[in-house]
Amino acid sequence: MSTPHLPESRTTRIIGIDPGSQRTGIGIIEVDDAGRLSHVFHTAVAVAGEPSFPLRLKRIFDEVCDIIAAHRPTECGIERVFMARNADSALKLGQARGAAICAVASQGIEVHEYAPTEVKQAVVGSGRGDKTQVQHMMGVLLGLKGPLQADAADALAVAIAHAHTRASIARVGIPRTAWRRRR
Amino acid sequence: MSTPHLPESRTTRIIGIDPGSQRTGIGIIEVDDAGRLSHVFHTAVAVAGEPSFPLRLKRIFDEVCDIIAAHRPTECGIERVFMARNADSALKLGQARGAAICAVASQGIEVHEYAPTEVKQAVVGSGRGDKTQVQHMMGVLLGLKGPLQADAADALAVAIAHAHTRASIARVGIPRTAWRRRR
Repeated sequence: MSTPHLPESRTTRIIGIDPGSQRTGIGIIEVDDAGRLSHVFHTAVAVAGEPSFPLRLKRIFDEVCDIIAAHRPTECGIERVFMARNADSALKLGQARGAAICAVASQGIEVHEYAPTEVKQAVVGSGRGDKTQVQHMMGVLLGLKGPLQADAADALAVAIAHAHTRASIARVGIPRTAWRRRR
Repeated sequence: MSTPHLPESRTTRIIGIDPGSQRTGIGIIEVDDAGRLSHVFHTAVAVAGEPSFPLRLKRIFDEVCDIIAAHRPTECGIERVFMARNADSALKLGQARGAAICAVASQGIEVHEYAPTEVKQAVVGSGRGDKTQVQHMMGVLLGLKGPLQADAADALAVAIAHAHTRASIARVGIPRTAWRRRR
């Protein structure tokens, strides 16, 4: 009698990004076919010290490219922004977000956008959780010890939101092309 | 008697960019040591047809990289944005601007920002000129025939603003490092 064929468990690496004009959180997780999550990497890139705003953007771009080269994620989740305090801060945030998205897209990785409420729903079970809850739950879900910087926690959270969404899409069998154009 | 040494006239290629979430104007000019301008290239990249906003940003990034590879400018001028209609349009514009700046900066080219009034002052002699005047003066200053698309005209105008500024900086002898950090 031959041993039954057990398909190998496949894992997917996801990069999550929480862009900001002062600090950009970047997190990488791995998810397997059973939906099990594991932590790969996280950081918060502080760019306020760069001598000009274009150099801040270049720094975000370069850091995201370097992290992708080092950890080779194949999918990306990024938080969709609805509102900013005012037009000036929206413009700054938009530029940081544009830099991060270009870095990911220039490596041939598809970018998926999630609303803040979707991200919170995925990691704290409610669309209205606060920052401290998100930080706490990242530690629980990914088995991290010690305090986690808030932007890095948000980046890991949006990566997890993408891991959940891709799993439910796979279950109901929505074709990949429809998924891509949904945004 | 030997022929007196005449230094060769050096030219500098400048890329000017007028970013937008619908259309991004890109213009390239050449300026020689005597301040004489000549037209090299211009286009307006329409991105509204892309299936998602991240793909719009990728398209802007790719087009700017391709145009730099083809025409090899060494300096860049881009319009500084002060105000947008509202936070939502500021966010979209900011992302397009971030994509364009990253494309330039990733090619090792320094980005110089100019206020809209500085750009208009440079090309129509007043900070309060309108779009039609800018379009008209681009034709006059660069010897272009026929109508010029408005975003392409704005891109050429910011390139000219940079050509003027670098010339006055050279005349008064401000060291290059101070210039770089002025912004």
